[in-house]
Amino acid sequence: MLIEMPRHTEIFGSVKIHEMQRVLKIDSGRFANPRAKDIPFEDIKDILRRFAIIVPVKDEKIHLLDGVLRAIPFDCTVIVVSNSKREGPDFYKMERDLVRHLHDLTQQEILIVHQKDPDLGFAFYDAGYDHLLRRDTIVRDGKAEGMIIGMLLAKALGKDYIGFADADNYIPGSVREYVIDYAAGFCMAESPYSMVRLHWRYKPKVVEAKLYFQKWGRVSETTNKYLNLIMSAHTGFETGIVITGNAGEHALTTKLADILSYSTGYSIEPYHFVCLFDRFGLGVKNITDTDAANAGIEIFQIETLNPHIHEEKGKAHINNMLLGSLQTIYHCELCNDYVRSKVLEELGDILEWEEPKKSLIMPPIGELDAPRFMKMLESTAETFARFEQGAIVSEGEDKAYLKEESSHTE
Amino acid sequence: MLIEMPRHTEIFGSVKIHEMQRVLKIDSGRFANPRAKDIPFEDIKDILRRFAIIVPVKDEKIHLLDGVLRAIPFDCTVIVVSNSKREGPDFYKMERDLVRHLHDLTQQEILIVHQKDPDLGFAFYDAGYDHLLRRDTIVRDGKAEGMIIGMLLAKALGKDYIGFADADNYIPGSVREYVIDYAAGFCMAESPYSMVRLHWRYKPKVVEAKLYFQKWGRVSETTNKYLNLIMSAHTGFETGIVITGNAGEHALTTKLADILSYSTGYSIEPYHFVCLFDRFGLGVKNITDTDAANAGIEIFQIETLNPHIHEEKGKAHINNMLLGSLQTIYHCELCNDYVRSKVLEELGDILEWEEPKKSLIMPPIGELDAPRFMKMLESTAETFARFEQGAIVSEGEDKAYLKEESSHTE
Repeated sequence: MLIEMPRHTEIFGSVKIHEMQRVLKIDSGRFANPRAKDIPFEDIKDILRRFAIIVPVKDEKIHLLDGVLRAIPFDCTVIVVSNSKREGPDFYKMERDLVRHLHDLTQQEILIVHQKDPDLGFAFYDAGYDHLLRRDTIVRDGKAEGMIIGMLLAKALGKDYIGFADADNYIPGSVREYVIDYAAGFCMAESPYSMVRLHWRYKPKVVEAKLYFQKWGRVSETTNKYLNLIMSAHTGFETGIVITGNAGEHALTTKLADILSYSTGYSIEPYHFVCLFDRFGLGVKNITDTDAANAGIEIFQIETLNPHIHEEKGKAHINNMLLGSLQTIYHCELCNDYVRSKVLEELGDILEWEEPKKSLIMPPIGELDAPRFMKMLESTAETFARFEQGAIVSEGEDKAYLKEESSHTE
Repeated sequence: MLIEMPRHTEIFGSVKIHEMQRVLKIDSGRFANPRAKDIPFEDIKDILRRFAIIVPVKDEKIHLLDGVLRAIPFDCTVIVVSNSKREGPDFYKMERDLVRHLHDLTQQEILIVHQKDPDLGFAFYDAGYDHLLRRDTIVRDGKAEGMIIGMLLAKALGKDYIGFADADNYIPGSVREYVIDYAAGFCMAESPYSMVRLHWRYKPKVVEAKLYFQKWGRVSETTNKYLNLIMSAHTGFETGIVITGNAGEHALTTKLADILSYSTGYSIEPYHFVCLFDRFGLGVKNITDTDAANAGIEIFQIETLNPHIHEEKGKAHINNMLLGSLQTIYHCELCNDYVRSKVLEELGDILEWEEPKKSLIMPPIGELDAPRFMKMLESTAETFARFEQGAIVSEGEDKAYLKEESSHTE
């Protein structure tokens, strides 16, 4: 891959935020270039082998999920966390059939589980992590909760990198690029605590029966503005470095995933910044995680070559996203009165001047016994299946299905 | 790459048409699989190094061209043939600046030339190939003419494979896939005379402010129907094997490019089949090219993983395409009266029962002295530039621009 060098890095306490870098070419010729970084494909492949991509699914069109799964590079492990409906028709069953079929063809490692499986809830309860449970039994609805399920499974598999890809993407080729972009970010990282966030070149909208290639979403613009304002207010120097506050497509090292807390609802992505500011930002006194503070936390922001074309979620979605993002920012401990008053102004129309709510925050998952968690799922959870890499071996003219799946239904 | 095996191959004289094959995964794990062919990336890379991708351009949005050029794999040579306007503003200059800038960054080999360059016209005249000239001086307008310019340059560079990519593609990642799909086809080919034609999984249209993923275009459906009918009428067995009659995205071996004739206007793609039927089809008596006839001509039809989203060309474009395609089929020498009457029926509305015109056909380019042709362009044509692979070398901290371009303007 050929990628721009970041021209500037903002250092805010132990948090290093690199300026946006554009992908110049997905592959490259290993020529020295003073303006760009050339990352050999072997280095990227080396990351991919230690990488799990989590695909949260909720009643997405099965055609879209199919394209996304086929596009994820073979060397990664894919973890599908489904919160789809189970009756009239059973979407989860369709998804699982699709996963099994794709594994039959490609022999890529794929895991799948349903978010509402009672045995999954019990495994969390058993692990002592009830922060995403409803009445101590079943995992709540929510993409953030699905992401935590996926992260625990990635940890159980011993993966070093964890990334996310939405299942509603119309362009398989762009999903493929996302994963390669993540890996490129990790190739550039110097700290074991790092994160890659993607910035879409364009997000086309249908305007008067034509595609219009919009550069920014309003929510992102606003979220980024206030995340930057928190830093500016502390350092006394204005910055516009954060441009990926709402980046749903992001990836992080398992080491960083272990120490972060996670917000719920639409605020999970901007809360990454808020959490890092609160724990490692400029002027923070009680730093609990000295390892990470010493190594520094690196954030890469990569502009994709492909545009992002996904299912339109409607206007309510946009407002909720804005509200969730700004509430989270409002409650950042580094917010001073000036920043808070600005956020309140922005929220005026939506909130009618009531106090922004605190989002529910789920604590770090670093202490959980992930292998035990997965073992419980393997032995009890009806919806859990793990299709291992190369589990089908063809012998001469015959096919021998050695292991089809390791779910307890067998 | 993991790709379906063709389940069936139609053999029509020396022409072998393989059934459509779906791309299952862009990369793969080299596991044996009885139902799919696993093509190692090294084999694909080996093809790419001997591959030129021709990008015909005519006043396309510069953003789209930029994305397309960045997406084409590094190992290929890119040949941009522009027929863009040269004043108010000078689109060609913008394109050439873009190409130079991309070469500075990526150091990929790129050639560019303007179709209307008088010295280009003269080089064709000098080569004794005046079939695409207007009044013996300037190359005519037309994509087919641009494609011939590109093919001659590819031949001059000694490339073994020649492919085409349109410059109006919204999704860079899909262009990248097209090139890899072409290469995969050539990896499967047994004959040195082979062609790969792409079939889009979906071609989304904007319908009521939403993207609608359409499976077939009406023109393609009709073109394919009559190409298949020509074969069925000869063999006595109905077939639906041809599904890529109008495939603008196609690639062929230079050996095949050398012996084909080329139609003009919208009929260049379906004419590939017509030309092959006329020369190598079932029952053809005077086969002139016995080498190719003995080796067989192989046609692969690959269904892409990505959908195709491009600029909408409007309804006039559709009708002209249908007319061009069917006229070409009408004049196929293997057409019997039954097929001709069916084609006339189909054309009824458009032609008002006048006789379908013969498209202008340009003869094979195999005998032309391509290296001499390119040398002439290098020494005379103002709009011709060749940016070689790795022409910029960074020396220590300095950059030394060894050769920026080899146009006579220097």
